[in-house]
Amino acid sequence: MSKENNQILKNTNAKILDEFNASIMFDKELYSQDIKGSIAHSKMLAFQGIISFDEQQQIEEGLLKVKLEIENGEFKFSLKYEDIHMAVENRLTEIIGEAGKKLHTARSRNDQVCTDFSLYVQEKTKSIQNQIKDLISTFLDISSKHTTTLMPGMTHLQHAQPINFGYHMMAYANMFKRDFERFSSSYERNNYSPLGSAALAGTPHNIDRFKTAEFLGFTAPTQNAMDSVSNRDFALELLFNISTTMMHISRISEELILWSSYEFQFVRMSDEYATTSSIMPQKKNPDVPELLRGKTGRVYGNLISLLTVMKGLPLAYNKDTQEDKEGVFDSVKTIEISISILNEVIKTMIVNVDKMEKACKIGHLTATDLADYLVQKQNMPFRTAYYLTKDVVSKANSLNKDISELNIDEIRSSNDELKNINEEIVSYLNLKNSMNSRNSFGGTSTYQTQIQIENIKNWLQTI
Amino acid sequence: MSKENNQILKNTNAKILDEFNASIMFDKELYSQDIKGSIAHSKMLAFQGIISFDEQQQIEEGLLKVKLEIENGEFKFSLKYEDIHMAVENRLTEIIGEAGKKLHTARSRNDQVCTDFSLYVQEKTKSIQNQIKDLISTFLDISSKHTTTLMPGMTHLQHAQPINFGYHMMAYANMFKRDFERFSSSYERNNYSPLGSAALAGTPHNIDRFKTAEFLGFTAPTQNAMDSVSNRDFALELLFNISTTMMHISRISEELILWSSYEFQFVRMSDEYATTSSIMPQKKNPDVPELLRGKTGRVYGNLISLLTVMKGLPLAYNKDTQEDKEGVFDSVKTIEISISILNEVIKTMIVNVDKMEKACKIGHLTATDLADYLVQKQNMPFRTAYYLTKDVVSKANSLNKDISELNIDEIRSSNDELKNINEEIVSYLNLKNSMNSRNSFGGTSTYQTQIQIENIKNWLQTI
Amino acid sequence: MSKENNQILKNTNAKILDEFNASIMFDKELYSQDIKGSIAHSKMLAFQGIISFDEQQQIEEGLLKVKLEIENGEFKFSLKYEDIHMAVENRLTEIIGEAGKKLHTARSRNDQVCTDFSLYVQEKTKSIQNQIKDLISTFLDISSKHTTTLMPGMTHLQHAQPINFGYHMMAYANMFKRDFERFSSSYERNNYSPLGSAALAGTPHNIDRFKTAEFLGFTAPTQNAMDSVSNRDFALELLFNISTTMMHISRISEELILWSSYEFQFVRMSDEYATTSSIMPQKKNPDVPELLRGKTGRVYGNLISLLTVMKGLPLAYNKDTQEDKEGVFDSVKTIEISISILNEVIKTMIVNVDKMEKACKIGHLTATDLADYLVQKQNMPFRTAYYLTKDVVSKANSLNKDISELNIDEIRSSNDELKNINEEIVSYLNLKNSMNSRNSFGGTSTYQTQIQIENIKNWLQTI
Amino acid sequence: MSKENNQILKNTNAKILDEFNASIMFDKELYSQDIKGSIAHSKMLAFQGIISFDEQQQIEEGLLKVKLEIENGEFKFSLKYEDIHMAVENRLTEIIGEAGKKLHTARSRNDQVCTDFSLYVQEKTKSIQNQIKDLISTFLDISSKHTTTLMPGMTHLQHAQPINFGYHMMAYANMFKRDFERFSSSYERNNYSPLGSAALAGTPHNIDRFKTAEFLGFTAPTQNAMDSVSNRDFALELLFNISTTMMHISRISEELILWSSYEFQFVRMSDEYATTSSIMPQKKNPDVPELLRGKTGRVYGNLISLLTVMKGLPLAYNKDTQEDKEGVFDSVKTIEISISILNEVIKTMIVNVDKMEKACKIGHLTATDLADYLVQKQNMPFRTAYYLTKDVVSKANSLNKDISELNIDEIRSSNDELKNINEEIVSYLNLKNSMNSRNSFGGTSTYQTQIQIENIKNWLQTI
Repeated sequence: MSKENNQILKNTNAKILDEFNASIMFDKELYSQDIKGSIAHSKMLAFQGIISFDEQQQIEEGLLKVKLEIENGEFKFSLKYEDIHMAVENRLTEIIGEAGKKLHTARSRNDQVCTDFSLYVQEKTKSIQNQIKDLISTFLDISSKHTTTLMPGMTHLQHAQPINFGYHMMAYANMFKRDFERFSSSYERNNYSPLGSAALAGTPHNIDRFKTAEFLGFTAPTQNAMDSVSNRDFALELLFNISTTMMHISRISEELILWSSYEFQFVRMSDEYATTSSIMPQKKNPDVPELLRGKTGRVYGNLISLLTVMKGLPLAYNKDTQEDKEGVFDSVKTIEISISILNEVIKTMIVNVDKMEKACKIGHLTATDLADYLVQKQNMPFRTAYYLTKDVVSKANSLNKDISELNIDEIRSSNDELKNINEEIVSYLNLKNSMNSRNSFGGTSTYQTQIQIENIKNWLQTI
Repeated sequence: MSKENNQILKNTNAKILDEFNASIMFDKELYSQDIKGSIAHSKMLAFQGIISFDEQQQIEEGLLKVKLEIENGEFKFSLKYEDIHMAVENRLTEIIGEAGKKLHTARSRNDQVCTDFSLYVQEKTKSIQNQIKDLISTFLDISSKHTTTLMPGMTHLQHAQPINFGYHMMAYANMFKRDFERFSSSYERNNYSPLGSAALAGTPHNIDRFKTAEFLGFTAPTQNAMDSVSNRDFALELLFNISTTMMHISRISEELILWSSYEFQFVRMSDEYATTSSIMPQKKNPDVPELLRGKTGRVYGNLISLLTVMKGLPLAYNKDTQEDKEGVFDSVKTIEISISILNEVIKTMIVNVDKMEKACKIGHLTATDLADYLVQKQNMPFRTAYYLTKDVVSKANSLNKDISELNIDEIRSSNDELKNINEEIVSYLNLKNSMNSRNSFGGTSTYQTQIQIENIKNWLQTI
Repeated sequence: MSKENNQILKNTNAKILDEFNASIMFDKELYSQDIKGSIAHSKMLAFQGIISFDEQQQIEEGLLKVKLEIENGEFKFSLKYEDIHMAVENRLTEIIGEAGKKLHTARSRNDQVCTDFSLYVQEKTKSIQNQIKDLISTFLDISSKHTTTLMPGMTHLQHAQPINFGYHMMAYANMFKRDFERFSSSYERNNYSPLGSAALAGTPHNIDRFKTAEFLGFTAPTQNAMDSVSNRDFALELLFNISTTMMHISRISEELILWSSYEFQFVRMSDEYATTSSIMPQKKNPDVPELLRGKTGRVYGNLISLLTVMKGLPLAYNKDTQEDKEGVFDSVKTIEISISILNEVIKTMIVNVDKMEKACKIGHLTATDLADYLVQKQNMPFRTAYYLTKDVVSKANSLNKDISELNIDEIRSSNDELKNINEEIVSYLNLKNSMNSRNSFGGTSTYQTQIQIENIKNWLQTI
Repeated sequence: MSKENNQILKNTNAKILDEFNASIMFDKELYSQDIKGSIAHSKMLAFQGIISFDEQQQIEEGLLKVKLEIENGEFKFSLKYEDIHMAVENRLTEIIGEAGKKLHTARSRNDQVCTDFSLYVQEKTKSIQNQIKDLISTFLDISSKHTTTLMPGMTHLQHAQPINFGYHMMAYANMFKRDFERFSSSYERNNYSPLGSAALAGTPHNIDRFKTAEFLGFTAPTQNAMDSVSNRDFALELLFNISTTMMHISRISEELILWSSYEFQFVRMSDEYATTSSIMPQKKNPDVPELLRGKTGRVYGNLISLLTVMKGLPLAYNKDTQEDKEGVFDSVKTIEISISILNEVIKTMIVNVDKMEKACKIGHLTATDLADYLVQKQNMPFRTAYYLTKDVVSKANSLNKDISELNIDEIRSSNDELKNINEEIVSYLNLKNSMNSRNSFGGTSTYQTQIQIENIKNWLQTI
């Protein structure tokens, strides 16, 4: 190969290599955390007498200028500065000169990247929690309106017992409450500052890590520098917390898709959140919940990716860890837009109260209530009660009715042993009564549903 | 097909179907939780006047008898009773008669299975935490003995800076401390009793769920019955917590494997925990850490399995959820034996202090200290300091020495500008001094390592 | 600690360690492959003059005796013989004496375990393929019966176009055909014998690996011994192939669950494959398809487990690889029972032809046919055609009819521009005509569906 | 809320919703496949008389113009046109007017997206295969140079037997050969054209799907339109094939990292592919192999993502499937750059022949050869041979030598029974002889390694 060609090849390789090695094209996402961390570091350095207060002033102003440039789109991100840390520091030095070079005293890229990433994870945790809070509020609103809206409670996608729609929505409020709490405890557990861990062993400089921790809103500095630069538990926890939340979203999405079908018709997506056909405006594809359900896959994938990356890594820093960020960014964006969209979807959906109530009349949902009545109020043995219930069900079937629609004569005529049965039995077969009879704590009765709403409302006040 | 053959086929199918549907062959693992839950339920039923105290007495004694039978291996597990709940209840009724049938009043298999599984997860969480506590103690013991044992701290598997071995071990103590805390917060968040949720909507019976919650050691009953029977978050959290702990175990395993190689020889597995060759007793295969590293795969798999199962499930109970248990049982067994074995492996490993210290003399680990010294103590500009350091390194290379081994004459002769350099420079190149100079909070100095040990020791007292 | 206690502890540890290290409790699954491999090896050794033919005879007879013992349940599996290979070999030597010890000449456990596992994977591939073949036949049977059974073809779980049920079933026949082919190509690609690779580098003995390959049904020996003992690609392929097949099973399961709901009622599970309620015999929980859907999770998990295990393993053999088997065994068992059960479920399900056809009359499925007719046969501009179609749909809605139910007068009266429209338009709105009009290759017309059935039938003859 | 604010909110929501729903920002990657597919479709439409040849001409020229605009960066991608299909078609109509609207006759977005994506997967499969071919060539080159370079073959990261480095490299050549073949069979199995499947049921138009299949290089059209628009098996196979290849890459990466450590020093990364320190130019961080190892995580994640998305989806098209592309694009880019970089890394690495050979002298690698010699050539019983070998090893240890370095006197003096041992024993302890003695097919001897190289070289000619 000629020397020239060789050179071209080398340059091509070098370009591919730069692309391969560099993280700048995705870790620029961390620019604000990087600058925040650097300002905190510079202030500490000044307090400790490692740099002068004048130098700190220059550094801080310079960094804020860099931040503005980035936010105004004036900043040129280039592969030349492999990562956001070098890109910012290099630009800082261009702006303020020599003082810029002192910023990196007593830290290394290893603790810097951990600090930035940790700040990002903590900030995003908080903002996702705020979104979840809003989402729960929406569920409370809907629930409040529907504590008496009958619907068939299902197991195995089969009608099982009459419940109210508000109660069903409260199941989701409770799931997302757990999600909120899971994010909270991850936040607390991981709110420690790695800054000052340096490469892997701390630094000979007389730094004060408690100060930078405080400046950055961390509870305290981390305890062991080697662990600090090797640790990505905080990112894994975020990925898991997002996965679990997204799993919950996939469940309501599945229900919304089912409920939007011609067969169910329990809800209708608002026009905004469904695609329609020009010819058939009544047809509405539940694209949004389908996409929400589908997006569960990517957040699961991101979790398994980072778990795989971390498996079997020796201490301390290895370049593998550079693979920690894109999946986290992607999961964060996915959950943010997903909660936001889900919130709107359920806020704007039209609940078809009639269809839900009508559906309760399929499946003899109160057959169990009838049997229970015969046992408890009429002191019949189980066996007899079940035998009679079966006959009432048959009677209803022969009349093309649900047992909840039978009158006292129809009931009495279904078996001789029932011919004198107390008229109150009709009320036990009533769907609303049946729903309200499940009045145990956490049950579906309107009363218990209201308590559930109240409890979560109160909890929302405390967070 | 002849009628007879048809019957045989039907029976074969029926057998396969039973095997397919039944969970008894794995959920028998939950026998003690099932019995515990049933006793609590019966006591509550008695207090609420739903059954008599005499009946409760019979039930409790009967259940304890069943428990004994199971523990003595006298109990016949059969596919006939699809799951542990039916198997136990059926045997109970065989033993005590009619009263046994009353036990199932005001509950359903849906809340029963959740309660049993939740009790299992909570109990196992506690016992895994105890194991982690022991493991941390072992790390503290080893660390305490090695706060002055020099070893090369690595990044990219390259020698980077001198640290002490105790400090390296403390990185793991901190990881496992986080694991302990993660289990703790899952325990708290999920310590709510689903019992009394019934099928999906609560029950008309006048039960007291706070009472059963209290009897079973739960903080309180869950808030929404529909969520309660659909919820497997607690199991997912356990699987994630185990995965993260196992990931940490895979990291120390990787290091133990590396350190056991001829090339490293930093540690030697004790004879018990390594397979040896009959001819070459000095050869020791690190089978145990390899297997520990490998077992990471299965716990990751179990996590992704349950996440997949739960994706897109409509409320409330679906049979898919039966797939929640085997993975959890497998992960629990895996982490239990893994922690236990790891604890022994590190307790009994022989630390090769000499090899570690010798390894520090490869890579000129104190070159940075030299440069820092020239900048800070001699007020040289960076550029000059680095230039001179490079020359000292070259000198050392030419003498086949590490720079930490150079005497003052050798240093002075490496460049004219160093010919009058203060003799104290030698001490800055000293490995132990270098290690001890990293005295920032969380740093590797012997002093800071001892503080780290003390802090975790104190924390252990509090848990 | 007293010496005695110490001894007890040591013994306890030793027991746990044995349990941890040993694979015998799961790899006994490989007993028949192990014995098959050993017989082939012994025959080759005899042909090559490494052992005598008499010794070979003794070995073969001894091994067959061991096999019988295992199959009769007389064999004692003990942790003492760590794995199936040692257990068999040890028993062989007990039975035949010295000759037994010669069996291990020119092989090592590394190539032996690969050979056994590879044989297992190949055998199971074949048997899974046979099951898939049966399953496809069932789909063909059902399809053949339903090439004129109308049902609403769905996108987004919304009625989209009229199709026939046979055509829908043929979609699955095609999926499972791809699965069959995927297993086939894995079989071919991986059908190479690792036997004779020895520990990692081959052997000094004058063996003939082509001979053992031939004895065992392999195409040829593998090419590089180091790769051979490190390779688990064949197991990964099996896990992936099973995952994809199971994913297809999860899709038809989802549909069966939907179709079994009160809302759909397109099919009814036969009594055997659904659980019913004693009171309401018409209620049928689709437990089996739910469980099938759920089992998808575990096979995905097994795939990710082994991928994780293999990641970053240096060559050649590492003990991590011992973790390769349990997941494979579990996935094999899962797919075997799943295909078997699915086959029965669809064979015995009751197809509710009326409900399906009735459902086609919801959603104006032929609206597109109407618009197409106006454009193509009446040469109207798109815009006009769509405008008129919308009016016909409105008319139908006002009459509470589907457009497929409109007579010519109703159509003509829906807009002035249609008042003279040709009567043939009615036939274009007919559902069956609409279905049959989609007569392109691969389309839903009865004719094309029959071709599809014929094609797969012919293909089945060739495999 | 004021009307105005409400409007703003609505617009904000609309924007988020557009972002959420639209795929244009990632599926623009498919522009060339989309245009290729459309040209083929238009040609078929003309041949079938559905459009005129003049219209086809306009469409083809228009599409090529659009392609140019995209490739010149002149094309404005906007969320307005939800996906690449609509963006291209819309621009086409802007350029050529009415004829553009006819292009969509007899197809739907459902079959169009499958066709585009399938074309992409097939093209990328081919290009990845070309890269793998190059990579294998590189391994052959290196192997050819090192068939006599001794290195310690390892199991459990422990020295086991002397092999040659070329042989070790050939293990990887064989892995990547299997990868190549896996891609090949996926290509064949999935090379069927979905075009003309329309929405889910085919089309009433008189199209010729065999023609479009041929134009696009597909073997034939797919057999069932419903399966065709629901199918993503081809994408899953690509993701799995990439995962397996990447797993192999992770294994050599792990070895390169180990071999680059101070402890091993078997290879040195070329300056281009390692980061160095300004002070210590001899220090080289193996960033590139670390990143390669890390990137395994993301491709595993992408596989599990799509498996999760597809689980339990009812037929036919659901919007969830839109989540199929980003993971595939990401995995394709990852494997492309990874193979490319790995190829350069191994091409340019410096093999430290001396260090490798020296390492063979640790661990008494020929002890087994000695024992074998005593048994086979001296007819000693095993037990005696092993006892004597142990003594020779002890002797060597006492002399601080490896047994391969002992002379005949040293051997003879290690045990009385060896005092007259034939001098030829020395040659059996020789490392090179030991390596060459493993001359079975697939073994490590130089001769067998050369055969292995030759075989793969010949195979490369055939593909």
